[in-house]
Amino acid sequence: MPNRAFTFTAIGEVQSCFKEKFGIPRQPGLAPSARARILIYPEFARAEAFAGMDGCSHLWLQFVFHANEATWRPKVRPPRLGGNKALGVFATRSPNRPNPIGLSVVSFLGCIKEETGFFIDIGGVDLLDGTPILDIKPYVPYSDAISDAINKIAPVAPQLLPVSFSDEAAEFCVVEDRKHGDKTPLENLIREVLQQDPRPQYQALDSGRIYGMRLWDLNIRWSYRQSDRTTGVEIYVLSVAPIHS
Amino acid sequence: MPNRAFTFTAIGEVQSCFKEKFGIPRQPGLAPSARARILIYPEFARAEAFAGMDGCSHLWLQFVFHANEATWRPKVRPPRLGGNKALGVFATRSPNRPNPIGLSVVSFLGCIKEETGFFIDIGGVDLLDGTPILDIKPYVPYSDAISDAINKIAPVAPQLLPVSFSDEAAEFCVVEDRKHGDKTPLENLIREVLQQDPRPQYQALDSGRIYGMRLWDLNIRWSYRQSDRTTGVEIYVLSVAPIHS
Repeated sequence: MPNRAFTFTAIGEVQSCFKEKFGIPRQPGLAPSARARILIYPEFARAEAFAGMDGCSHLWLQFVFHANEATWRPKVRPPRLGGNKALGVFATRSPNRPNPIGLSVVSFLGCIKEETGFFIDIGGVDLLDGTPILDIKPYVPYSDAISDAINKIAPVAPQLLPVSFSDEAAEFCVVEDRKHGDKTPLENLIREVLQQDPRPQYQALDSGRIYGMRLWDLNIRWSYRQSDRTTGVEIYVLSVAPIHS
Repeated sequence: MPNRAFTFTAIGEVQSCFKEKFGIPRQPGLAPSARARILIYPEFARAEAFAGMDGCSHLWLQFVFHANEATWRPKVRPPRLGGNKALGVFATRSPNRPNPIGLSVVSFLGCIKEETGFFIDIGGVDLLDGTPILDIKPYVPYSDAISDAINKIAPVAPQLLPVSFSDEAAEFCVVEDRKHGDKTPLENLIREVLQQDPRPQYQALDSGRIYGMRLWDLNIRWSYRQSDRTTGVEIYVLSVAPIHS
């Protein structure tokens, strides 16, 4: 019988804006402003191992779903499908699989050597903070981008909800951006993440309920309400505030 | 320090037309007729774990580069670039990497339960026979197919050489197809594989030299010559014959 067990060692770990599972976009690329850094561990932190990466716009990450506690089951109920349709685990991208190895394509923003370590900056992530990285590969458009591929389970990106901000929340974002001089405005990040509607799809809409999630060291609170501008529901950001204050 | 070592167990192994490393296309999809089957090991061979896969045209395979003997180095010389340009290993898809986990997108042809086991049939493979499979995931076009991605190292598919067959080789293919009733004509498979030009790019063209590779249980022999039809070089298939005869 051939060898069936293989041991791998993480080459680095993710420092992400997503500090908890709730609210992480269901695929990469859905929130372009969602940034992260991969801290490359010292034994792999050699600039030459990344030479040529600046010619690549996107990278594949192979990583471990480290916050995954459940044991795998042959059938899963993807939240995307409202949680009421069971599919084979290998027909989904569910984290809960026999080998919990994730696969995400992210935009490549640069390699940076700092006093605190060697980092790969990435964007459009769907990665939880602390995610162990097993491998980084360049995206090869001529073989990876299959324009006529079909996936009937997830044929299109999730529908987006409009997002509006309370005056207080909008003002906090402006002040925060001024402080950090960040190129990605905080309001954009919050909008891109929340418009995916992190709420479990099987949960009935309750306009009285307040939801919260963490982005970086900020707590974002929102509720759902009838939109002033459209006929449907919108997400209303109530407040954005530091976690410890 | 977080846990850095992770052990995974193969869920199956590949039965491929490629029985040796020489001649395998450098990316998947380049030889659509290159078929393989994944034998799913008994503990994962449950049809329900694959339910819904028939709605997917393509699959991602995460696998182990099991025939990889060399230890990794920070720089590699991709054969595609003539072997004379060194690049960082993480800027390439080289098999020789810290964690030898491969990533290939293949076309999905069906799940088949037979007496000898449970199989996933796939096409357009670049996988060596015996490759251990760690995970199978559906291709999700809206996030995986990035039409504006750039990769300056491998911007386009490799250039193809014309392939012509000796009368003897062409006749063998016709007889073989008649025997097996295969939907993929053997001549197409040989053409798709050889037109990639398996020869190492740094090797000077020697029209006297005969090359060989194995496809399934057949030995393919070819040489290079001036094309009758074009101004350049073509591959001339001398013979196709069973390995043991």
